[in-house]
This record gives sequence, C-alpha cells and structure tokens, in this order.
Amino acid sequence: MAYARVETVGILTAGGDCPGLNAVLRAFVRTSARTATWKILGIPDGYEGLVNDAPFRTLDGDAVRGILPRGGTILGTSNRCNPFAVRHTVDGELTVTDESEKAVAKLRAHDVDVLVVVGGDGSLGVGLQLQRQYSIPVVGIPKTIDNDLSSTDITFGFDTAVATATDALDKLHSTAESHHRVMILEVMGRNAGWIALESGLAGGADIIVIPEIPFRVERIAEAILERGRRGIHFSMLVAAEGARPVGGEPILAQRVGPDGYPRLGGIGAWLVEQLSQHVGYEVRATVLGHLQRGGSPSPFDRVLASRLGAHAALLVGAGDFGKMVGVRGLEIVPVPIEHAVGVQKLVPPCGERVMTARHLGIAFGD
Amino acid sequence: MAYARVETVGILTAGGDCPGLNAVLRAFVRTSARTATWKILGIPDGYEGLVNDAPFRTLDGDAVRGILPRGGTILGTSNRCNPFAVRHTVDGELTVTDESEKAVAKLRAHDVDVLVVVGGDGSLGVGLQLQRQYSIPVVGIPKTIDNDLSSTDITFGFDTAVATATDALDKLHSTAESHHRVMILEVMGRNAGWIALESGLAGGADIIVIPEIPFRVERIAEAILERGRRGIHFSMLVAAEGARPVGGEPILAQRVGPDGYPRLGGIGAWLVEQLSQHVGYEVRATVLGHLQRGGSPSPFDRVLASRLGAHAALLVGAGDFGKMVGVRGLEIVPVPIEHAVGVQKLVPPCGERVMTARHLGIAFGD
Amino acid sequence: MAYARVETVGILTAGGDCPGLNAVLRAFVRTSARTATWKILGIPDGYEGLVNDAPFRTLDGDAVRGILPRGGTILGTSNRCNPFAVRHTVDGELTVTDESEKAVAKLRAHDVDVLVVVGGDGSLGVGLQLQRQYSIPVVGIPKTIDNDLSSTDITFGFDTAVATATDALDKLHSTAESHHRVMILEVMGRNAGWIALESGLAGGADIIVIPEIPFRVERIAEAILERGRRGIHFSMLVAAEGARPVGGEPILAQRVGPDGYPRLGGIGAWLVEQLSQHVGYEVRATVLGHLQRGGSPSPFDRVLASRLGAHAALLVGAGDFGKMVGVRGLEIVPVPIEHAVGVQKLVPPCGERVMTARHLGIAFGD
Amino acid sequence: MAYARVETVGILTAGGDCPGLNAVLRAFVRTSARTATWKILGIPDGYEGLVNDAPFRTLDGDAVRGILPRGGTILGTSNRCNPFAVRHTVDGELTVTDESEKAVAKLRAHDVDVLVVVGGDGSLGVGLQLQRQYSIPVVGIPKTIDNDLSSTDITFGFDTAVATATDALDKLHSTAESHHRVMILEVMGRNAGWIALESGLAGGADIIVIPEIPFRVERIAEAILERGRRGIHFSMLVAAEGARPVGGEPILAQRVGPDGYPRLGGIGAWLVEQLSQHVGYEVRATVLGHLQRGGSPSPFDRVLASRLGAHAALLVGAGDFGKMVGVRGLEIVPVPIEHAVGVQKLVPPCGERVMTARHLGIAFGD
Repeated sequence: MAYARVETVGILTAGGDCPGLNAVLRAFVRTSARTATWKILGIPDGYEGLVNDAPFRTLDGDAVRGILPRGGTILGTSNRCNPFAVRHTVDGELTVTDESEKAVAKLRAHDVDVLVVVGGDGSLGVGLQLQRQYSIPVVGIPKTIDNDLSSTDITFGFDTAVATATDALDKLHSTAESHHRVMILEVMGRNAGWIALESGLAGGADIIVIPEIPFRVERIAEAILERGRRGIHFSMLVAAEGARPVGGEPILAQRVGPDGYPRLGGIGAWLVEQLSQHVGYEVRATVLGHLQRGGSPSPFDRVLASRLGAHAALLVGAGDFGKMVGVRGLEIVPVPIEHAVGVQKLVPPCGERVMTARHLGIAFGD
Repeated sequence: MAYARVETVGILTAGGDCPGLNAVLRAFVRTSARTATWKILGIPDGYEGLVNDAPFRTLDGDAVRGILPRGGTILGTSNRCNPFAVRHTVDGELTVTDESEKAVAKLRAHDVDVLVVVGGDGSLGVGLQLQRQYSIPVVGIPKTIDNDLSSTDITFGFDTAVATATDALDKLHSTAESHHRVMILEVMGRNAGWIALESGLAGGADIIVIPEIPFRVERIAEAILERGRRGIHFSMLVAAEGARPVGGEPILAQRVGPDGYPRLGGIGAWLVEQLSQHVGYEVRATVLGHLQRGGSPSPFDRVLASRLGAHAALLVGAGDFGKMVGVRGLEIVPVPIEHAVGVQKLVPPCGERVMTARHLGIAFGD
Repeated sequence: MAYARVETVGILTAGGDCPGLNAVLRAFVRTSARTATWKILGIPDGYEGLVNDAPFRTLDGDAVRGILPRGGTILGTSNRCNPFAVRHTVDGELTVTDESEKAVAKLRAHDVDVLVVVGGDGSLGVGLQLQRQYSIPVVGIPKTIDNDLSSTDITFGFDTAVATATDALDKLHSTAESHHRVMILEVMGRNAGWIALESGLAGGADIIVIPEIPFRVERIAEAILERGRRGIHFSMLVAAEGARPVGGEPILAQRVGPDGYPRLGGIGAWLVEQLSQHVGYEVRATVLGHLQRGGSPSPFDRVLASRLGAHAALLVGAGDFGKMVGVRGLEIVPVPIEHAVGVQKLVPPCGERVMTARHLGIAFGD
Repeated sequence: MAYARVETVGILTAGGDCPGLNAVLRAFVRTSARTATWKILGIPDGYEGLVNDAPFRTLDGDAVRGILPRGGTILGTSNRCNPFAVRHTVDGELTVTDESEKAVAKLRAHDVDVLVVVGGDGSLGVGLQLQRQYSIPVVGIPKTIDNDLSSTDITFGFDTAVATATDALDKLHSTAESHHRVMILEVMGRNAGWIALESGLAGGADIIVIPEIPFRVERIAEAILERGRRGIHFSMLVAAEGARPVGGEPILAQRVGPDGYPRLGGIGAWLVEQLSQHVGYEVRATVLGHLQRGGSPSPFDRVLASRLGAHAALLVGAGDFGKMVGVRGLEIVPVPIEHAVGVQKLVPPCGERVMTARHLGIAFGD
C-alpha cells in the first residue's frame, strides 16, 4: 500500500482510563498537521464507537487545545468491547456475536484509510486482527497503567499511577506510626506487580506482595513482628490486587461478584483478616481503586504520551503499518504489534528491582 | 489554684489521627518557651499512656523541630481509650474497669500540674471529668477532621481532609466522563456530613448524600437520569459514610463486622448495588478511608493548629482551666469544655451551604 | 427599580488574575438558572470590554461546564482599566479620557439591567461610580489574592496564593538547611502583609517582613546570628514586596522601572545585598511573582468563590444593589460597596496573628 | 586491593542540592547492612568536611530512618569546594591552595577504606583524582538536576525539577490566557537545556529557548505574532538560563554580579525587554531558581536514587573502584568515572525530543 494514499485517519482510545490519553491525541493531531495532509476522525468510546451509531468527529487543532494536562480522553472509551466478539444480554441471556464486518463497514463509509488504536494488549490485538482480516492498515499506541506490555520499556499512565499510590503511602505512613498499626494499600495489578513494586519502593513500604512472588501469611507476619522486636511498631504493606498465597489462587479470583466486580473485598480485606490473627497490631486496608486511573498526567507521562502520539503520526506517514510505537532506552521505536500482544511483561522475581527492594529491607512474604 | 504554681504541664494527643497535631505540639512548646517557665511532658499514645507504663518524655524546642509540615503525631495516639472505662479482653471476655485513679497517680508521680488534651468530643470530656473528679486542671484543644464540634467554627484537620477528598473527586471526574459512569466517593462522616458537603462543593459533585438529609435511591437515580436526558452521561456522587435512606438506618450500621470495622462495604458499595438497578450506567465506588487522616496538613490547618496550640499555652499561663480554645470568626476564644462536649455540630439541612449547593444544581436525594 | 424587571445581567472580571474567578462565574450562572429568568452576558477583559468593541457573549450552563477547578477567568481580564479615566498613549504621550458614557452606552445597547463586577477595591469603586452617575444597578463580588479588602473577613484566591507560597517555603527549607543558607522568599503584598504572614506561619519561617511593621536590617541579621549561636545554621525569611525599613520607603518604590514593572529586583534582591554584609552565610532570594495568581483554586477557595457567586445572584434577584457579598464569620452577608472601597484591611501589628507568630519565635525585624 | 578488607566506608554529598540525595544515603546504608559488614561514616558538607574540622558521623539504620521522602541531604553539602584547589579570601585577596593531603590525612585518621562520592561532574572528578593521586578507592553516584552527565541515561533530581517547572507552567498558563500576555519561565540549565525542553514539552510551552539552539529575538516574536493571527493572544515561553542569541554570548554571562550571582536579571528579564519591543502584548517573566532544587523527590527520583545507592554499595562490596553507577535503559551499570567526567550530555539539536517538540508546534526561535 502506498502511503501517499492516506487521506483519512481514524483514531480511537480503548480500554480502561489512563492518564496521558489526551496528550497522545493532541500530539497525533499536531504532528499530523505539520507533517501530513490527512484528515483525522475521532471514533467515540473505543471499539464501541465502531459497532454502534455514534458519529465520528473531526479532530483538528482546536479540538485538542488545552487538553495536554487533563486526565481522561476527549474521545471517550469503553472496556472489553471487541467487534469480533460483541457481548449482548437479551432476556438475561448473554450472546456473543462477531460484528467486525459492521465495524469495517463504518470505517469504510467514512473513508478511513488507516486506523490508529490507543489501547492495551487486547485492544491492540483487535486492531491487528482488523488489519489481517480486512486489510485495514493499523498503527498502535500502547496504553496501560500496569506497565505490563512486552516490547516496550514503559507505558504512559504508569508513572502517574505510581505517583498516586506513593502519595497514598506517604499519607498513610504517619497514621500507621502514630497509631502503631499495620497499614495495607491495595493497588492495581491483576497479573503484574509493577505498580505495587514501584510505589512500594518510592513510598518506603516494608512489605510488598505481588502476583509474581506468591506469599505466605506467616512470613508477612514474621516481618511485621521482627520490626516490632526492633522497636518499630508499625508496618506499611503494598499489595497488588492479583497477589496470591503460595500454592493458592489469587485472592481476587475468590472474591469476585457475579458481575465480575470485586464487591466483597480483595487482597487488602483478606490480609486484614489473616494478619489480625498473627500480629498484635491493628491492621487496616485502603483500596486505591479508580484513583490510580485519573488525574492530570505526571510530566513524565505527558512527555512520553506526546512522543508516542507524534511518532505514531510519523509511522502512518511512512506507511509502516501493523506496528506500534514502543520505548527502548531513550528511543521511540516501531515494534510489530504481534510481538507485543499476548505476552505480558511480568516482574522478574530475581530481577534488579526486586533485588534492590530486598537490599533495602523490603519483605515479599516468600 | 494560683497559676504561678504551674511547673509541669503534661500534654497528650488522643483519638484518630488528624493533620495538624504536630503543629499544635510545636506551637504549644514554642509559646511556652517564650511566655512561661514550666516544663512540658509528652504523654505517649493518648490516654493509653496514662494507664500503662510507657514513660513520659520531655518536650522541648529540639523535640518539635521540623515537625510543622508532618502528618501524624510525634506523641502517638490511641482510639477509644478512656481511663474511666478501660476495656480489657481476658479469655475472650470483655471487661471494663475504671483506671482513672491509676492515671491520676501517674500524673501526680510526674508532678504534672496541668493536663493539656488535644482531642475530640470524647477525649475532651474525659479531660473535663479528670478535672472535676480529681481536681487536675485541664485545658483542651479541639481536634476532629469531621468538623462536628460545637462551640468552635472550625477544627484543624478538616481542611486537609477536604483537600484529599476534593483531589480524589478531581481524579475520578475524568474517568467518570470518559467511561460514562456514575462514580461514588465515600468519605468520612458518621454523624455529620461536613466533609462530604464541602468536598462535594469543591469537587463539583452532582449528588451529595449526608446523614443529616436522608435520601431516597429513586431520587438519586432520577438526578442521574435527568443529567442523561440533558446529554451528560456521567455523574459524581459523594457519600458520607453515615448517610441513610429515608426512614432507614445508616448503611454503615448494617454493614459493620463484629470488631466494629466495616469489612463488608459501607454506603459506597450499597449504593453501587442499589443504583445499578435504577440506571443504565456502570456505577463504581471508591472508599477514601484512612487517606483522609494523613498527609502534610494544608497551610490553613498548619496556621489554625499553630494558633490553637499557642493560645492553649496562654490559657495555661492565665490559669483559665476547664476551657478549650475555639474559633469564632477571626478570633481564637476560650470556651468552657462542658459547652463543647456532648453536642455535635451537624450540617443544617436548610442552612446556607446546603442551599448554595442546591442553587449550584447539586441533588441531595431527598 | 423593581427587581422583577431584571431581564439581562452583565458580568465582568476585572484586575489581576485570581484563583476562583471561574468558580464565581459558574456559581452565578447556575444559581441564576435555578432562581431567576434573566439572561447573562459575559463582558470580555474586565472594564476594557466596556470601552472597546469586543462582543459580549451569552453565559449559560454549557459555557461554565467544567471550569470550577480551573485557574484564570473564561471572560478574560485587564489591569487598571477605568472607564472614567482611560489611559491612551499617543505619540509617546499619555492622555487620560473619561469614556464612561461610551461604556454605559454599550451596556444599554445590550439591554443590560444590572452589572455584576468581580473585582478588587478599585474595580468595585468604578462599579459604584457607574451606579451613582448613570443609575446602572451594580452588585459586587470582592476579589483580591492579597486579602486586604475591608468589610469582608477573607477573599477567595488568598488561600491558594498562601498554599503556593507555603509550598515554595517547604521546597526551599531543605536546601537552606543542606547548604547552611539564608533563603528569602519574596511574595505579593504591596501594602498588606497577609500573604507573607500566613505563608510564613504555615511554612515555618524564622523571619517575616511586612509593610505594616517596618524592619531594621540589623535586627534581621541579629535573629539569623542568634539561630547560629544555637547551632542552627540556616534561616527562612518571607518578605512581602512592599516591606520597608524603619523610616524608609518601601524597597519596591525605589526599584521600579519606568513602566511600573519591578525589573531590577525588589525587596528580595535588596535584602540579599544588605544581609550578606551582616551575616557569614550565603543569602539567596526567590521571587514567587505570578505563580501566586495561577493554578487550580484550593478547595477552600472553590467553595468560597462558589458561595459568593451564588449569593451575588440572590442579591440581584432581591434588587439589593450597590452592595457586594462579604464574609462575616460563617455567613455570607451583603455589604455596601462604599464601606468596602477606599479602606484597606492591613495586618494589625499587635493583633493575634502577629502575636502568635512572635510566640512561635518568628522575628519581624522590628 | 582485596575488597574483603573494607571495614570503613566514608560517604559525602557534594555540589548543589538535588532531590533524592537522602534516598541515596538511605539505600546505601540499608544495602550495606544486608550485604556487608563495613561501618559507614557520613562526611559533613561535601568536600568541605574533608578540609575543615567538622566531625564525621556514623550512618546506621536509625540515622536514615524516615528520610526517603525528604529533600536536601542529612549530610549537608557545599558548592565548589575542591580539596585540590581550596579558595580562601584573606584580606580581600583570593588565594587557592592544594589541601588534598589534609583531606586524605583526615580520611586515613578515620580509617576510611573507600570513599563514596555523590556528586556532579566536578565532584566525581575530584574523587577520581583522589583515587589516582592517593590510592583512595572511590565509588561515584552521579547527581545533577540538569541531567547533563554523559555515560548515564538520566540522573535523579531531574524528574523532580521538571515537575516543579511543569507545575509552574500549569499555573502561569491560565494567567497568560486571561490577561493576553506572554509569560516567560526561566529555568535552570547553564549549558544544557534538558529541564527547559522537558518541562516545555510537559507544560505545553509554545516557545523553548535552550543553550544548544541559539535563538533570534525576531523569530521568537514572529512565533508569538503568528499565534495572534490565529486568534490566540497569549504565549508561554520556557527559557534555560544559559540560552543565547545567535552569534552572541549567553545572557547569563552578561548579567552576573562580581560574586558570580546573577543579581541583575538573566535571560528572563532580558527577553522581557527585547520582546516588549517586538510584540504588542504584555510580557512577564518568572525566575524559578532554587525552587527547582528542593522539595520531596518525585516517586521516579526516589526509586532511581534508591537503586543507585543500593548498587553503589554492591560496587564497594565487589571492589569495583573508580566507577560510578549509571543508568542504561532499564539497567543500572558500572561506568568508569573517567568516561563520565569532562563531557557534558547536551540536547541534540536534531534529536528525537527536539524534533517531537517541533512536530508539536513548539518554536525554538532559530
């Protein structure tokens, strides 16, 4: 495909909210204005905007003015919508239908030549499938606050999420100390413990539990009691939501309501119950939840998101499709989407960061 | 008692953590150094330090250096310890004993002439009882993040708690909008809705539910749907933990575990369940919890706490006992503790702030 | 005038930028929508919008959506434009002309029944003059980050400015200590020292110099050296820009460039020069400048500005003209504008806040 | 030298303050405690502590408790002290003497086996010289907020400095817009424009001037006027202090007082003068100054500083002297100090970041 043919680019933001999405959109629009001639159409609400009737809107310089420091996405987004497997509930029964033809028809009706997908593992995979099955050229921009995408050193949103979690730890610290308590902060991370590990390092946690390193409650309790023997009668614990005991399921999986939403308390509440039986201190949990996805992106994330958005426009201009923009060291590099999807980047249990944490005296409960 | 006789002052911080406690201690110590000759003894862990064997420590200028911007309390604190009714659990059975004589003996053993209590309603009441029953002169400094103490316009810690809640609302706002969700923020306030009301006003909430104005779920749902009819497909709701439906108990009371800790979800989780049945949007709750009690105090709270600490020293110097330092308009005034305790300052349902909120379009679900 | 006749309200924001202006506008518009039927016209760029050709714009609910947390003013503003004395420079020569008739004609051409002025001392005075001379009913909303307006306990914007200055002090503190330096922070306050005093209290300053308490350099140096004798080899000094030595002019007045802008260094730079000759420590100054006027308003300021904006709408509805909305204790009250203008609220040199500061060990150099 | 012999390690922090120094010290001490047996001596006030009589202090776990989130350095620091060329002023005359023997004698008197230097280019070079000339084994930890050290991808302190500058831009933005002004923010960077470039990208600057890309005032003015023609009557400009016009000296160099301190206004004030003659807008400058060096380190800097401190301890343990710990991609690597000193890492004028900035519409005035 000759890239000179690109006249219209469609762009969507898919999946969970992530600080920096607006910076990506602004950079893509501004770079396109300076390096290309195509028109840009914003697709509302992620992939949902491809399978429903919501209108596309033109994204020009005015549309992206002033959005750099704002959280959220001006395009809207949706979770878990996949045009190849759209879920409908009719009369209480769930049906799954392939509506990819409808999605592609909508793209073609708007003369969309290239589709830019800002999304995580799943959303990028859907984009790749659209390219393979329907020859819609796709360019990806990786997005996850969990930082668990392979083929890129880091993703935007992560630094902001870590900052929110670290701020929470700073806040909880003085209360823990004043009340001689064990304070637990539950953070995001179903499969990967990056947010827990990084915020735990930054916030001076004493114990970190992550999915990659199964824990034993007794070992956690022992770390708390050992501090007590040294005269320090409080402890800070950061728990990734997907952490699990040795030989057991993630607590998350045991505590999910029928609609998939963890109503009844996750790892934080579970650890309160368990640890209260092993240590003589009060144990309290705070679940950070959605706060990690919101707020003005950190300067680091604003710059990273801007660089990725700008480079995605250059990829479109170069006709280099089926790629996403990734970070390698100080560089932005194109990466085949197929190398990025399907393989999660987990915390290496014996990697440098975990070893540094251990050197600092942080226990992992293993 | 001639106030010239004061040679030793004991000071304690009691009850839940509250940003500004350290600023109070610093101001009390510094003002004492400039206006008096007494020695100051810090009593550890609130009233617990009176009934156990923990040593008192001398508080001088060095002890309070650098603590102004720090959360927590360098003295430590404890919840619900009352020397007149100390709770012990022996063999699984709870016994309550009056240990006030022991407490007074410890004060006398340290030659404490005056006791300064930094605490809430309950702790100030205990101080008053010590004065009445044992002739220990007491001066009080009111402390509650809930701002529900009568006889003072405002309490330190409240402004910081509101700032934390407002920051959370700012963070949740963009996610709510991007995902077309109803976002609920559950904040502190078992009996009084001040934090919910003030942060709701500051954070641009659409709906606020507080204990003082019982709500109907249908009315809340109607406010959300009405916004939808105007094309605004998200809503922000702030709920005080003690909010309750018309004619019902507070949700809090229905959801407390046997140890008094709300394990199973409070008003936030309850509203998620209820509202999900009435509106077509996803509903999500975030429980702010202990984050509201921590962190560096806001400038407002640092100044207020400093003023109160300084004035408490002046009250001790003036021999004006049985009083606490209160705020009236721009002034710091002495207030008889007996006027302050036992009467909570609730949000007036038809007061100016609620009316302003209604004028701004905020619904209360009533 | 019967207030039932109000069909069109014009509103303008005048004078220097101030956090909370947008919150005022939002509250005025929203309260009007719920309590009245008038149309609201936004006048651009303060009084300049009355004497030039810029169009008015309708302010409705959509126009004020999402602006609560934003600094600045969506209407724009201008400094020192007075329709009764408009300054023009023609061929390098300054002429001053009365263009008030033109301003009134523009208001009348738009059928403006009532003019709402959000502004400081000067701007409110202009409003009052318009009412008196041309019978344009005026309602005022006081605005100044300096907090120096009489007839109101506090003004919005002040809390945010103090927070910015306090944050700067927190940042400078550790550098001062690590480098054994005297760090000076120059803050706003040409005539009144409120920002310096409040941020100095909140930020743990050792010395505060304000216009109301003339200082002697030797006394300031002595306070610094005294700390050194106690083993503390750094000091934090907050200086209001209008501070002046005993018997002298404000430094500000001596250092202003021909265009009124302090190019060559104000009190901060002057104190660096002077103190360097008296103490053996390095002395460094930071000028906070415009940073104090910007940023998202603090929760306190958002609520205060919202309350004032809402009450101004009620005043218009009540036909209570020639008044501004003021704060007295916990209440919002109408105050005759003539009582508010022309009299500055200065820091009482022997008032409670200054005495508290002295009790805390803060020197004023007097 | 057999590394098993290390019994005492001396550590100092040298040069300008930098957020993260305390995190480095904490990590070095904690990692040493877990991986080695040596005693650690803290040397006060950088290299000054080697040539004066100030006592060393033992650094153990207690000494570094609670310092992770704090700015500054608990060891103190000093600027420009070099034991090989100590400057004394006697009777108004400057003499420079080599006191390196005295420094080494002091180290030997304390049985210091290894010296760990946390410092910038100059301080690391002094360390290397001590090793070469006196066989004092040295390990370096690079420190500069300017991020201009070669042989490492990034330095701690930079992210925090950029956050402070970005926050300032966010604050100035709304005032610029409300007042139709050109707002200039002067940030650090005498030789390298990293802070200006990164904060300009993050803060949505319209114009960035840096030392590496000489500017023409006319080109800057043209960028401002071009915005005006598009209806945008304000502009944000970030200037590195060392920026210079095409063919000219840095403004900094022309404006420095006899003591090396820029009293009379640097690039910011100069641009106000110059631009005021070319554009019809008000132009205002803010000099961020020391605020960039202070404050609690960002989470990113806390983690980075902790990793470097931990790895420096491992280097000491491995006997790998003459090296500093550097960052390459996601790794911490040892780098010969001689490769790092003497070569500054400047912003590549045609590198990816500058090109991204241009794509975003940012002008560099060239």
